[in-house]
Amino acid sequence: MKRSERLVDFTNYLLNHPRKLTTLSFFSERYKAAKSSISEDLVIIKRIFDETEVGTVETFAGVSGGVVFTPAISDKNSQEIASEIAALMGESNRILPGGYIYLSDILGSPKNLDKIGKIIAHEYVGKQIDAIMTIATKGIPIAQAVSSILDVPFVIVRRDPKVTEGATLNVNYMSGSSSKVENMTLSKRSLAPGQRVLIVDDFMKGGGTLNGMKSLVHEFDCLLAGVAVFAEGPFKGERLISDYKSILKIDSIDVEKRSIDVTLGNIYTEEK
Amino acid sequence: MKRSERLVDFTNYLLNHPRKLTTLSFFSERYKAAKSSISEDLVIIKRIFDETEVGTVETFAGVSGGVVFTPAISDKNSQEIASEIAALMGESNRILPGGYIYLSDILGSPKNLDKIGKIIAHEYVGKQIDAIMTIATKGIPIAQAVSSILDVPFVIVRRDPKVTEGATLNVNYMSGSSSKVENMTLSKRSLAPGQRVLIVDDFMKGGGTLNGMKSLVHEFDCLLAGVAVFAEGPFKGERLISDYKSILKIDSIDVEKRSIDVTLGNIYTEEK
Repeated sequence: MKRSERLVDFTNYLLNHPRKLTTLSFFSERYKAAKSSISEDLVIIKRIFDETEVGTVETFAGVSGGVVFTPAISDKNSQEIASEIAALMGESNRILPGGYIYLSDILGSPKNLDKIGKIIAHEYVGKQIDAIMTIATKGIPIAQAVSSILDVPFVIVRRDPKVTEGATLNVNYMSGSSSKVENMTLSKRSLAPGQRVLIVDDFMKGGGTLNGMKSLVHEFDCLLAGVAVFAEGPFKGERLISDYKSILKIDSIDVEKRSIDVTLGNIYTEEK
Repeated sequence: MKRSERLVDFTNYLLNHPRKLTTLSFFSERYKAAKSSISEDLVIIKRIFDETEVGTVETFAGVSGGVVFTPAISDKNSQEIASEIAALMGESNRILPGGYIYLSDILGSPKNLDKIGKIIAHEYVGKQIDAIMTIATKGIPIAQAVSSILDVPFVIVRRDPKVTEGATLNVNYMSGSSSKVENMTLSKRSLAPGQRVLIVDDFMKGGGTLNGMKSLVHEFDCLLAGVAVFAEGPFKGERLISDYKSILKIDSIDVEKRSIDVTLGNIYTEEK
């Protein structure tokens, strides 16, 4: 195979195997080419992926060496995308009775979800994450987007156990906004002890739901790798959770004036 | 930019813009290269995408011409993937009390979902589809996977209206398995009249839920583009829906012997 042909397949292969170590021998065999040629290919791919901010290509020498592609966006690109989505969120026709915000179109767009997935994944580059956890319903698309970038499975917590889940582990939690005790449940076989779990959700108010998921992580003898939300809403009083990352922050919603004040979340405003 | 460098970016660009027509002028400008060079690049990409079954690359001449990449898998590859997933489904430890099957791990794996999305999208190549519809909870990952391949939005039907959805359109439907009348609801602003909607879900028994979604499509003055499910289960009696596609078919579940008889669905067994 010629270099030009190899590069097309090589690019496609790496994009489809994020965060996986593949040996140079594999490519050498696949393309019937010398390892030195493969290394030269990688130099080209690495440069273009760097320049176009597709992600990083790292090569590791030695017996257990190989190449790993990590999808990534730059801090600048991440912030640009977040600003675009913030502009969408600020549209006045999103305000629903009771001061709720209509988000289903934003979170039903595969392009937006891919961006949201990349932004959240970008915050955990270099950290080991074995699974993504979210709660039905609207957290699911976000969990799936992040899971696709990190190439790890996602698990869906529910408020009521379902017959299709088998034995479940249940926890009670205190809703941060309404101060009611609620229940959440996750299939026993969803997680194995010791796994590192990243919790994601679409929207945070008081943080009660996220806090519930944190306790689920502990009940499964898993480790918490992080908590990330698409948007945090306005909340008076103390949140039940303090260590989280948010892409967007809604400072206020004025139902009468039909205006939403959306700014960038703590991913962009707090020091790392 | 050299051809080798162009090809890396070009490949990435096409993969990230499925089913979108992009003019050659755009690439000519992007790479500061003559259109003849761009055309030559495309010949290489087209050949490799064909050979490795990544998808088709079509070029259209003329003023409104350009290039369109359509992710695709071959019938053979589709069937191989379905067989792999069928083998997973047949594992005896998936059987739950009541003869239900545990699927959450299969439908929580981004790799599997990508494959399922490609198989379903492959069945509707050449058809216009403007939106994917599914019902919460377990249809969502499938809808998102298909929507990502087709690059169209997905909408989530719910069994109960939520305050975050605004005005909703509700329909009653008859459950095929339990013969109860149930309710489903979708935000009024989810779909526009005249859109072509593909309905997807994870599991079909009597077809009542799918039938309910079909009536929702009609109530929105939309057109039905198709109905596809990941798996159809065993069902005695007449289904409420006849025109659907399935990837897998569960012929029988023997709870006592802990065996599941899984075969390929009608995508592979019926003439097209």
